[in-house]
Amino acid sequence: MNIRITDVTIYTPDKNIQGDICISGNRIAAVGSTPDDMIFDEVISGKGKMAVPGIINCHTHSYMSVFRNIADDLTFMDWLFGAIMPREDRLSPADGYAGAMLSCMEMIKSGTTCFMDMHMFPGQSARAAKQLGIRGIMTRGLVGESRTDKGALERIAEHMREREEFADTDTLMFRLGPHAIYTCGEDLLRYLIELAHETEQGFHIHVAESLTESADCMKAHGMSPVKYLDSIGFFDIPTCAAHCVQLSDEDIDILAAKKVSVIHNPRSNLKLANGIAPVTKLLEKGVNVCLGTDSQASNNNLDMFTEMSFAALLQKGITHSPTVCTAEEVVDMATRRGAAAVGLDAGAIEEGKLADIVLFDLDQTCFTPHNSLRSALVYSCAGVKADTVIINGDIVLRDGTLTHADEEEILFNAGKVCLD
Amino acid sequence: MNIRITDVTIYTPDKNIQGDICISGNRIAAVGSTPDDMIFDEVISGKGKMAVPGIINCHTHSYMSVFRNIADDLTFMDWLFGAIMPREDRLSPADGYAGAMLSCMEMIKSGTTCFMDMHMFPGQSARAAKQLGIRGIMTRGLVGESRTDKGALERIAEHMREREEFADTDTLMFRLGPHAIYTCGEDLLRYLIELAHETEQGFHIHVAESLTESADCMKAHGMSPVKYLDSIGFFDIPTCAAHCVQLSDEDIDILAAKKVSVIHNPRSNLKLANGIAPVTKLLEKGVNVCLGTDSQASNNNLDMFTEMSFAALLQKGITHSPTVCTAEEVVDMATRRGAAAVGLDAGAIEEGKLADIVLFDLDQTCFTPHNSLRSALVYSCAGVKADTVIINGDIVLRDGTLTHADEEEILFNAGKVCLD
Repeated sequence: MNIRITDVTIYTPDKNIQGDICISGNRIAAVGSTPDDMIFDEVISGKGKMAVPGIINCHTHSYMSVFRNIADDLTFMDWLFGAIMPREDRLSPADGYAGAMLSCMEMIKSGTTCFMDMHMFPGQSARAAKQLGIRGIMTRGLVGESRTDKGALERIAEHMREREEFADTDTLMFRLGPHAIYTCGEDLLRYLIELAHETEQGFHIHVAESLTESADCMKAHGMSPVKYLDSIGFFDIPTCAAHCVQLSDEDIDILAAKKVSVIHNPRSNLKLANGIAPVTKLLEKGVNVCLGTDSQASNNNLDMFTEMSFAALLQKGITHSPTVCTAEEVVDMATRRGAAAVGLDAGAIEEGKLADIVLFDLDQTCFTPHNSLRSALVYSCAGVKADTVIINGDIVLRDGTLTHADEEEILFNAGKVCLD
Repeated sequence: MNIRITDVTIYTPDKNIQGDICISGNRIAAVGSTPDDMIFDEVISGKGKMAVPGIINCHTHSYMSVFRNIADDLTFMDWLFGAIMPREDRLSPADGYAGAMLSCMEMIKSGTTCFMDMHMFPGQSARAAKQLGIRGIMTRGLVGESRTDKGALERIAEHMREREEFADTDTLMFRLGPHAIYTCGEDLLRYLIELAHETEQGFHIHVAESLTESADCMKAHGMSPVKYLDSIGFFDIPTCAAHCVQLSDEDIDILAAKKVSVIHNPRSNLKLANGIAPVTKLLEKGVNVCLGTDSQASNNNLDMFTEMSFAALLQKGITHSPTVCTAEEVVDMATRRGAAAVGLDAGAIEEGKLADIVLFDLDQTCFTPHNSLRSALVYSCAGVKADTVIINGDIVLRDGTLTHADEEEILFNAGKVCLD
């Protein structure tokens, strides 16, 4: 299908362009002006609208939307062991699907076109993402002691079956998802490194999230989580490391040298009292920093524009320098850097890139007056809702409404998941 | 006019109540059930909605909406002297009115029913607030050296004339607004203390916002800004002190003893790289902490739900304790404590209180599933838009649309203010 978006304000890192965007199949065919010989199946008026590269949420757990606002202001132990895990034990795969549908809807409506998921219900997030048309990178959360641990092997097998099942779905990709160093034994990690090499999959893992994780790693291995993972060859595999709050300068050098992508989750890190990741230092050292929301159980939403404002403002506040972590850098984290992290040819509105594009209505307070639209995206747009969302050349949101599913039904199904 | 809101979920600090809210004139007449003998001019269905006490934004500069997204990621000096002040010099009172209209619209639509304003165009914010029906506490920003400073005296006279002009407007109140210790000489401050005693007005002032302010005060007076103000009797007047980022333990004891209300502006303090106010300590010491957004030039929006999420999350992150600054405390800051700060008999949905009430549609992602609505307000609602807003018994927003002015006209008028 060919789509033409006419007379739209197009965000690029350098300057805004006023003009057309042409889409052919799942790729952007032209930006600025329309080729004379192109014939279109659909024309969307972009007048009074801004086109932004689809936002990429690099770390969430989409089934957990059903835990939104269920357990807050608790210590980590009370939260995890008292509130979340007992309820997780009672979730069914169908609940996981209902939760993932709510998350995918929330993401699309707020301008997110791609998310990386760590889940516990193989196939459910993938099915929800496929149904609503959002791009997803699926990782089954993997835990266990060693390569002979039956539970671990079963979870790995589930992941491989899911990957096989959705191999033909263009909008879905797969990574191996060892949960963390404190839930995966060294032998299991070494086995996953071998498997990643064999099957050409990247990693998605939680790293250096809490002080406890770092202290325990120091006690067990005599080194930091980053150094430990590096010592066993983990970072020879393309890795997306979520959180990375507790980092030494040496850790940062390792992450830079090994081209690890760091997924910054500012709201979740604050909410669980883990602190603030050293993003300014990471950027200075050339680390690819991208953004994630984490789940609604520790955020409590998936709005990447709120997350972007936290990312930009926190670094200024803690470094006492208002010029660090600029709006340009933060939009980059949420688009181009996110795409680089997950290995996607997207993140920019440029000829040849995948057609993942979001339109926002400029006729609302957060964009008024029409000054810097880049600043608007980071500093004034928390909670903004998209007008149109195109993913892989497919119009998945039109006039603010999902095209591939009924929104009321999604809200109803997620709302009726009973956890108590 | 009598209004009945039927079958609504009513937020109270203890628990949610399902039932009716009855309004008679500008006060809440009943909560929970409807008196048999009441006759209503208007009935609003509250089914599927939540009623929240009107949110109170205790510190902003409403004319500055025209500076939204105009100057970001700059050092404080480049921002203030290079970008903001030259443009302020070119603003007309009509521009100030257009800006205030945009701000009042933004606040009402996001559930704010009362704001404290520090402005430079006497009468313009008051006129905008009165037109749209939002409650306001007006303070003309006062600067100058002494009681013989002609400019200072003219600004004070402007304030007194404005106060006189709107004396009969129920929804407007007035306070004296010395800008800060670094823009007001000691003699002027002493004169304003005398005037405040005589005219029974409170104060609205910026205090201890930056490291520079504190260092300069130490150099000039040998003490902190808080101690300096206390030493001249400033806090004998009911005071709302905005920012209070740089505070010693002794300063906090003074603020507590003198019952100063501290207006926390977390986003502005981060954005201008001033840091994070010690809110947890202030609360522990019993200081009345309330919330403000500051202006769109340093935020860049007036959304109090985004501000609330920053308030709650920052304290958890920097204290490494997830149990501090709970959702309950933060809702309290944005409602009951804000009302106490500005001397308003509002901030709660209780019989006898002023009828400042906001309804939100519960049928949206940020409230789904319907778990803790208190958590929702603080953690998942950034950018949420109100369905209905009632201020002083007047329905100022209905089905998400202003009732007293045309929204497109407000956006157009603010958008055309030319600053370059």
